[in-house]
Amino acid sequence: MLNVAIVGPGLVGSALIEQLVAHSQSPRFASLPIAVVGIINSKKMAVSSTPFAVGDLGEWKSKILGDSASAADLGQFAEKVSALKGPTAVVDCTSSDTIAELYPHWLSKGLHIVTPNKKAFSGDISLFRNIQKLTTPQGPSVYHEATVGAGLPVLSTLNDLVRTGDKIIKIEGIFSGTLSYLFNNFSVPGATQKFSECVGVAKASGYTEPDPRDDLNGMDVARKVTILGRVAGQELSLDTLPVENIVPDALRSVASADEFMTRLPEFDEHFKKLNDEALASGSVLRYVGMVDGIGNQSSVKLARYSLDHPFASLKGSDNIIAFTTERFTNPLIVQGAGAGAAVTAFGIFADLIKVCERFGVCSA
Amino acid sequence: MLNVAIVGPGLVGSALIEQLVAHSQSPRFASLPIAVVGIINSKKMAVSSTPFAVGDLGEWKSKILGDSASAADLGQFAEKVSALKGPTAVVDCTSSDTIAELYPHWLSKGLHIVTPNKKAFSGDISLFRNIQKLTTPQGPSVYHEATVGAGLPVLSTLNDLVRTGDKIIKIEGIFSGTLSYLFNNFSVPGATQKFSECVGVAKASGYTEPDPRDDLNGMDVARKVTILGRVAGQELSLDTLPVENIVPDALRSVASADEFMTRLPEFDEHFKKLNDEALASGSVLRYVGMVDGIGNQSSVKLARYSLDHPFASLKGSDNIIAFTTERFTNPLIVQGAGAGAAVTAFGIFADLIKVCERFGVCSA
Ligand SMILES: NC(=O)c1ccc[n+]([C@@H]2O[C@H](COP(=O)([O-])OP(=O)(O)OC[C@H]3O[C@@H](n4cnc5c(N)ncnc54)[C@H](OP(=O)(O)O)[C@@H]3O)[C@@H](O)[C@H]2O)c1
Ligand SMILES: NC(=O)c1ccc[n+]([C@@H]2O[C@H](COP(=O)([O-])OP(=O)(O)OC[C@H]3O[C@@H](n4cnc5c(N)ncnc54)[C@H](OP(=O)(O)O)[C@@H]3O)[C@@H](O)[C@H]2O)c1
Repeated sequence: MLNVAIVGPGLVGSALIEQLVAHSQSPRFASLPIAVVGIINSKKMAVSSTPFAVGDLGEWKSKILGDSASAADLGQFAEKVSALKGPTAVVDCTSSDTIAELYPHWLSKGLHIVTPNKKAFSGDISLFRNIQKLTTPQGPSVYHEATVGAGLPVLSTLNDLVRTGDKIIKIEGIFSGTLSYLFNNFSVPGATQKFSECVGVAKASGYTEPDPRDDLNGMDVARKVTILGRVAGQELSLDTLPVENIVPDALRSVASADEFMTRLPEFDEHFKKLNDEALASGSVLRYVGMVDGIGNQSSVKLARYSLDHPFASLKGSDNIIAFTTERFTNPLIVQGAGAGAAVTAFGIFADLIKVCERFGVCSA
Repeated sequence: MLNVAIVGPGLVGSALIEQLVAHSQSPRFASLPIAVVGIINSKKMAVSSTPFAVGDLGEWKSKILGDSASAADLGQFAEKVSALKGPTAVVDCTSSDTIAELYPHWLSKGLHIVTPNKKAFSGDISLFRNIQKLTTPQGPSVYHEATVGAGLPVLSTLNDLVRTGDKIIKIEGIFSGTLSYLFNNFSVPGATQKFSECVGVAKASGYTEPDPRDDLNGMDVARKVTILGRVAGQELSLDTLPVENIVPDALRSVASADEFMTRLPEFDEHFKKLNDEALASGSVLRYVGMVDGIGNQSSVKLARYSLDHPFASLKGSDNIIAFTTERFTNPLIVQGAGAGAAVTAFGIFADLIKVCERFGVCSA
C-alpha cells in the first residue's frame, strides 16, 4: 500500500481526491493500493494512521478538514506522515516556494514526492541539485510530470529519450494554455479581432490569471522551459533565460489588472502590425518556449510559424510540444490540454502509480 | 543488473544492440545496469554467464554469433538464460508467431519479456489472456510499447489513462508509416500523382513491404488496433474487426508483386474518384484505425478528414494517434515516426529501463 499525503487540496488537489475516490469505487480497479492518509491546506490538517474511509474522502472538507482537524503545521504534518508504516508519497498541490524548499527535508525522511508545483524544478539551481542528489535509485523518488503540459506525456517522454542516450537537438512548444488560446484566435488568416479584444475574451472565459500580465510576461512558460532544459541535462535558469515579455513597457507598472485592460487597446496597433507582417509572409504568431539542446539559444518568445507547421493549426487552448532529437529528426509531437484540474490530477495520479510500481506496492 | 537476451538481431535487434553499446560507452550513462547475455537468430545462438564484452557486442556477428556459436535452439536458449543469476529480460525482435507462443513458458520461468513483435498481443485471445494472467505485480512483466507506433509514447499513455480510471471514448490514428506516406502524398489539395504512381514511389523508396499488398490489405493496422483495444480492456480480435482491404478485388490473387504493380494503374480511376469526392467536400483521404471505447464500431478503413483536422496536415510517413477520453475531450495527440530501426529500438530500450526500475536494478 502506498500512503498518500496531500498538501493543498485546491482545484488540482481536490480533483485528485475525486479521481482516487472514483477509482477505489470502480470494481475494475478496486485493488489499487493507494490510500490517502493525510490532507493539509493553509489552515487545517489531518493525518490518520489508517487510510481515510472513502466516504469521508468524498466529503473531505467537512469530514476530514472539518471541526476535528488540527491547525495546519507543515513540520508536524511531515513528522506524522513519515512515521507511518509503508512507503509514503507527499503530493504537493500548492504553488508555494516555501513548500518546495521543504522537499530535501521530506526526501531525507524517506518520503516520495509527486507534484504539479513548478517551483522546486525551475527556481534556484542549488535546490534542484539538492533534490536530484537525494533521489537515489532505491531511495525516495520525485515525479513531476504535471509541471509541464499537465497530464500530457511530456517529461516522461523526455526522460525516456535522455535515459536511452538519444541526443536532444531541440524542444519547442506552446506551453501556456492561455497564450495558446490567445494567439490561436488572434493570429489566424482571416481573423478580425483586436489583440485587446482577444485578451478580454480570454479573461472573461477564465483562461487567464486574474491579472493577464501574469500570463503575458512569459514567466510561467519560462519556468516550464527551465524544467525541460534541466531534465535534458542543461543548466537553464530563470535569471539568464531570454524571455520576451509581451506586456507593453508602458503597462508593466500600472497598478491594477483593470487599468491594464482599459489601456491595452492603445497597443492594438502594435500587435496588429506584428500579426499583419506574419500573415503577409504566410505565417502566424505563436508564443513559444524553446530548449536548444546543442547550442545556447534557449528562449521564450513570440515567433512566426508557417501555415503548414503543426503549431499554426493548433486550436482552443491546447499545448503542443515537439522534440527534435538525433533519432526523431522529424519531431516527436505531443499535443492536447495542458491545463485544467482533471488532466493535471491525471498526471499526478499516473505518477503515483509509477511510484507504486517502482517500489513494488502496485498491481498492474 | 538486468540481463538481456536478444532473440532476432535483425534490423531492430541490431539497432538495439548498437544503442546499448553506445550507451555503455557514454560517461553520462556508464552506470546503466543493463547487460546483454544472450543472442539468437534463426541459425545460431550464444549465451554467456557473464555479460558479453562491449567490444564483442559491437561486432556481434563475428565475435558472438561467429564460428564459436552453437546451432540455434530456442528451448536450450530459454533454459540457459533463465538459469542465469539476477532478473533477465528476453527481447523478442522477430515477427514470429511461433516465438510469441513461447511467452507463457518464458514467463513461467520468471523471464521478463520486452518486444516489438505484435503477434502475441493481436493473435489468439487465449494466448493474450494467458500472458496477462502470468504477469503479476511482483512477478515477471511484459512490455511492448514498440508494437504500436514504434518508440512513440502510445501504449504507455493508454496504460496511464486506463489505470487512472479515465474513460476511453475513442482512439483514432494513422498507424502505418507506409499508408501515411501514401495518402499524405496522394490525397492533398493540388496533388496530381496517380495512385499507382504514389505506390510505385513508396515501393522504390523502401517504404512498403516487398509486396505492397501486405500494407494495403490493412492487416498490420488491424493488429495495432487490436492491441490498443485489448490494452483498453476490450476483446477485439482480428477475426471480427472490420478491415477495409484497399487492394482491388481483381488484384488480390495475382501471383506476384510485380504483376500487382503492373496492373495497379487499371484502378487509378477508382482511387481518383474517391479522392476527388473527398477533396470536393474540403477533405482528404486517410487510412485510419479506430478503437471505439464506448460502442462496437472499432474498424480499420479509408476515411475522410476535413482539411483543418490534424490527420490532414500530416507529412512524410509519420504516425499520429488521437486519444479522446472523458478527461481529454479534445484529444491527446501523439505524432512522429512510427517505424524505423532506431526509433523502434528506442521504444524497446525505454521499456527495458522500466523493467529495471520496477525490479529495483536501475539507476535513474
Ligand atoms: N490548475 C491547473 O490547470 C494546473 C495545471 C498544471 C499545474 N498546476 C499547478 O498545480 C498547483 C495547484 O494549482 P491549483 O490550481 O490547484 O491551485 P489552488 O486552487 O490555488 O490551490 C492551492 C492549494 O494550496 C494550498 N496552500 C497554499 N499555501 C499553502 C501552505 N503554505 N500550506 C498548505 N497549503 C497551502 C491552498 O490552501 P487554502 O485552500 O487553504 O488556501 C490550496 O488548497 C500549482 O502549482 C499549479 O501551478 C495547475
Ligand atoms: N522495422 C521497423 O520499423 C519496426 C517498427 C515497429 C515494430 N517492428 C517489429 O519489430 C520486429 C523486428 O523487425 P525487423 O525489421 O528487425 O525484422 P528483421 O530485420 O526481419 O529481423 C528479424 C530477426 O528475427 C530472426 N528470426 C526469425 N525467426 C526466428 C526464429 N525462429 N528464431 C530465432 N530468430 C529468428 C531473424 O534471424 P535471421 O537473421 O537468422 O533470419 C532476424 O534476426 C517485428 O516484429 C516487426 O514487426 C519493426
